[in-house]
Amino acid sequence: MDLTRIKNPKFLKNLSVEELEVLSQHIRQFLIEKLSVTGGHLGANLGVVELTLALHKHFDSPKDKLLFDVGHQSYIHKILTGRTKDFDTLRQYKGLCGFPKVRESEHDVWEAGHSSTSLSAAMGMAVARDLTEQNYSVVPIIGDGALTGGMALEALNHIGHEKKNMTVILNDNEMSIAGNVGALHKALGRMRSAGKYNRVKDELEVFMKRIPAVGGKIAQTAERMKDSMKYFMVPGMLFEEFGFTYFGPVDGHDFHNLEENLHYAKKTEGPVLVHVITQKGKGYTPAETDQKDKWHGVGPYKIESGEKIKPVDAPPAWSQVVSDTLETIASNDYRLAVITPAMVLGSKLDKFQKRFPDRLFDVGIAEQHATTMAAGLATQGMKPFLAIYSTFMQRAYDQLVHDVCRQNLNVAFGIDRAGLVGADGETHQGVFDIAYLRHLPNMVLMMPKDENECQHMVHTALQYDDGPIAVRFPRGNGLGVQMDEELAKIPIGQWEVLEDGHDAVILTFGTTIELAMQAHVELKKQGISVKIVNARFMKPLDDEMLHTIFQQNVPVLTIEEAVLQGGFGSAILEFAETHQYAPRLKRMGIPDTYVEHGNVDQLLEELQITKDEAILQMKQLLNIDDNSEQRA
Amino acid sequence: MDLTRIKNPKFLKNLSVEELEVLSQHIRQFLIEKLSVTGGHLGANLGVVELTLALHKHFDSPKDKLLFDVGHQSYIHKILTGRTKDFDTLRQYKGLCGFPKVRESEHDVWEAGHSSTSLSAAMGMAVARDLTEQNYSVVPIIGDGALTGGMALEALNHIGHEKKNMTVILNDNEMSIAGNVGALHKALGRMRSAGKYNRVKDELEVFMKRIPAVGGKIAQTAERMKDSMKYFMVPGMLFEEFGFTYFGPVDGHDFHNLEENLHYAKKTEGPVLVHVITQKGKGYTPAETDQKDKWHGVGPYKIESGEKIKPVDAPPAWSQVVSDTLETIASNDYRLAVITPAMVLGSKLDKFQKRFPDRLFDVGIAEQHATTMAAGLATQGMKPFLAIYSTFMQRAYDQLVHDVCRQNLNVAFGIDRAGLVGADGETHQGVFDIAYLRHLPNMVLMMPKDENECQHMVHTALQYDDGPIAVRFPRGNGLGVQMDEELAKIPIGQWEVLEDGHDAVILTFGTTIELAMQAHVELKKQGISVKIVNARFMKPLDDEMLHTIFQQNVPVLTIEEAVLQGGFGSAILEFAETHQYAPRLKRMGIPDTYVEHGNVDQLLEELQITKDEAILQMKQLLNIDDNSEQRA
Repeated sequence: MDLTRIKNPKFLKNLSVEELEVLSQHIRQFLIEKLSVTGGHLGANLGVVELTLALHKHFDSPKDKLLFDVGHQSYIHKILTGRTKDFDTLRQYKGLCGFPKVRESEHDVWEAGHSSTSLSAAMGMAVARDLTEQNYSVVPIIGDGALTGGMALEALNHIGHEKKNMTVILNDNEMSIAGNVGALHKALGRMRSAGKYNRVKDELEVFMKRIPAVGGKIAQTAERMKDSMKYFMVPGMLFEEFGFTYFGPVDGHDFHNLEENLHYAKKTEGPVLVHVITQKGKGYTPAETDQKDKWHGVGPYKIESGEKIKPVDAPPAWSQVVSDTLETIASNDYRLAVITPAMVLGSKLDKFQKRFPDRLFDVGIAEQHATTMAAGLATQGMKPFLAIYSTFMQRAYDQLVHDVCRQNLNVAFGIDRAGLVGADGETHQGVFDIAYLRHLPNMVLMMPKDENECQHMVHTALQYDDGPIAVRFPRGNGLGVQMDEELAKIPIGQWEVLEDGHDAVILTFGTTIELAMQAHVELKKQGISVKIVNARFMKPLDDEMLHTIFQQNVPVLTIEEAVLQGGFGSAILEFAETHQYAPRLKRMGIPDTYVEHGNVDQLLEELQITKDEAILQMKQLLNIDDNSEQRA
Repeated sequence: MDLTRIKNPKFLKNLSVEELEVLSQHIRQFLIEKLSVTGGHLGANLGVVELTLALHKHFDSPKDKLLFDVGHQSYIHKILTGRTKDFDTLRQYKGLCGFPKVRESEHDVWEAGHSSTSLSAAMGMAVARDLTEQNYSVVPIIGDGALTGGMALEALNHIGHEKKNMTVILNDNEMSIAGNVGALHKALGRMRSAGKYNRVKDELEVFMKRIPAVGGKIAQTAERMKDSMKYFMVPGMLFEEFGFTYFGPVDGHDFHNLEENLHYAKKTEGPVLVHVITQKGKGYTPAETDQKDKWHGVGPYKIESGEKIKPVDAPPAWSQVVSDTLETIASNDYRLAVITPAMVLGSKLDKFQKRFPDRLFDVGIAEQHATTMAAGLATQGMKPFLAIYSTFMQRAYDQLVHDVCRQNLNVAFGIDRAGLVGADGETHQGVFDIAYLRHLPNMVLMMPKDENECQHMVHTALQYDDGPIAVRFPRGNGLGVQMDEELAKIPIGQWEVLEDGHDAVILTFGTTIELAMQAHVELKKQGISVKIVNARFMKPLDDEMLHTIFQQNVPVLTIEEAVLQGGFGSAILEFAETHQYAPRLKRMGIPDTYVEHGNVDQLLEELQITKDEAILQMKQLLNIDDNSEQRA
């Protein structure tokens, strides 16, 4: 079957269960093949093949609104809505987005990337529908992991209250990204096993009705007895308590079971929750049998063996360096406790977890709780380290403002995936953290130039006892530098001169140091001597060095792989203003726009964060007009 | 009884119930008297007199940790820990804080102000206790309103999972700040009424045990039957599902009932939730009978009548102007829907709610959900207006980044309490919003100079259809200016010259315009002509006017009642850098520190955001050295 001939999902209405099953096989094969080249979120999509087909058969997209929570499980939806041909470019520069994208299709009605947003969005759509007296279904599809995110629970509470018509699909694959956490998870487990009792349900109902004493003897308890019976019959009492009608558990790979439940769910008034059990990685043995995360997000692989195709002898990942350093520190300092919001694997903490199981807290997708729990630990003299991605830390901004920084507590943050992240794209770029952390009183923020400095910064963060401190580091692998044996403390706020120079200065840090060094070399050949500073503290700044630089009155270029508004370059402008210097200064960085997915190098090229641009800017600052090039 | 003689809560151990009741009366009388002069959170504190005494009798603070969620109900705790004498200065400059404050007492182990943080903090403390093999109780006291906040639910989920010893006190007064919202609230209602059944509990237990068929006939259902019975017996099954042992409902004004339950709760392993029913405003008739919010937060009042002592003929509150404008717009535009996170009264939306009950959504304390629900509404062509305090919007930073701004949706924000808020202090100052909003692509941010401009800005926001737009406005009352009859659109990004001048320019907006105007007058007398600009858009800037100003090369002073780091002044610095102007420029605003409670004028004085400072800065910029005063 040629999947590229699918233009929209209407054809599904006429397919039999057998035909749907054949189509499922084709789609699985297609995904396994395509993703073996491009990489992508294979496991999640293999799990929802039947579910997505059933949804598109029973609902009329785009009139009915399908909202994919997180969105990385929308590949089948993309196939069914005419985007099969674009899969060769999946998650590549200017290619098919790995998440729903309004621009790509009228069937994509809600964009996501972060988890737990779909229920709130669905509530907004349901309210809009009713206020404008329209008639369509609103169908958020949310995973069991995303359900533990605070905003999803806030939404459940409000939806149950307002009683709007809505069909929530709970896609329960028994894991968030890897393993699931929390009481809700256990409750779901009970619901799953309760499914077995459905067979004896009728029999029991008859039995319960035979109890005569209840109605007569203790009349006022009758209503409660009914509730109790319901609890006995309905495994999803937790959701019923929230005001939902519960359907399930449903076998998410059985079209008969899916269709029956969706049929009744659609007919039910008020909010409905359909609890669908799916198997992540379904239909591809290497994914199914993977014990870690069922191939959550993968790079290219060999189809037959499932062997991942990886660059040979890559340096260690930044996350691994951080995790290894934490392990070293934990063995010497009982006060260290590490917290992760559902990112044990992403943050490469699995080895740490094995060695120190009682000092690693995976709190599930719950960044707010993670941050304030760390604050609570700090009040008692512990040394909490919160391992969190830059983009997900956005969820805990108020906890940073109100709990951590305001109380000036010794919480250390390892901000992973800082800067551009590449394929995950605009929802995941870690480009705002400098801007949202720099204005918080008491915060210290640093970024290493290489993985050796990174280990020292982790050590520095955990030695620091004067308030919150964060080390941000990029996605991917380190530079392959030699690692020092001994961990060392870096003086807070002290920058490092990497190359001396007297004509001008480049202030930069982290990933952009490399292009600055290249610019240095090239400019030197042209007789221009530029000082390169590893401005490894974004806050506090190196006041002493800045005074020296500004007193020398040489031009300054700042370079950052982060948003320019309120960023590091702005901090330098503010310093100059505060001390009434009037430097010639230019800032390079990310302009006031969201950056889409693509290879990081391509993105940097597009954003003009390159060696050539640095050279150009530097010459403009120095009023050197070679080949008469002018810029606004 | 002289409450000032209380130094710590140890004396409570020896008090009889009768003595505790007498003490309660004294404390109530004290609070009613003191707060009649200072104002404060009377209702909440009157509700927890007995509860706080019982907690301090049964637990050993500070060894045991009492964490007051939100914290405005900690007055009795402050009395019991030796701070009675400070109540004359409650919430005043340099006086007693209205919330727990570590600096004030060793008994204050956790600071709050925003809701829903106590459970996460308690989890951190419990983990710290167990990792260091100590032995103490951790006792978060959280209201039913705060429980619907997402982070509290995240914490419940994790605490239930980890099974740490902890005694959660659910202080259920059947309202968040005014009325409660959501399915959880309904579940709590069921639990409250279920209390009645406790009397028949034993009888029923016997009865249920007599049912013989279950065990034999359908063996595998026995376990589930037991759960079902438990659900029947235990009203707090919702919390049991989350992994807590539930005690309650407990009469929060009955010492016998409180002591009995706290006694057993303390003995129970694992996390416990004690569901305490309290009456907000208890013991003071005007508060008890108030139908709105039971005197949540009040100013001075006459004790006998409860009559509020208010300034005569004050201009309308900013919130009221916004709300009235929304009412006008709603009657002409069916697309307007207003969302508030539990602030119907605070945002003065009660009249709007009465008139348009189906277009006002109080989602409870759930800022994340509120924001993304607004985004969902916008996707369907509605015009959502989110009425939210500046400080609480911090909770929804990621929803702004990821859902609203990234999708460039037409959500209008009314950011209330922007700038310094006074008595509520450092947890509530609305001074970060410019810094955290300005770096978000697509965001428009404005602030009016008076309430007439405010109504036009609300109108402008709802007419704007090119993405998110926010109007921030201060706490308190407007200026009493004439209101235009017709609503008008303000061109996006267009500033307004209030006074012309040729020697220098002051760029400012909102509350600080007044001091700029005063400086203008005074400087004019001294022969200095300063242009005063109402820079009513913080984003986008008025590029045209800025080019003109910088091309004239006159000194520029920026003034803002907001943090300087990444703030409005920085935006001007960035503009100058981008276009390579080298202006003489100084910024006035809030430095890199948290600002405590106090009268706003006193705070501005302390922060040197005054007319005199503006004049001084201006003269320095102009190199005018009168009376040889020099500054760094």
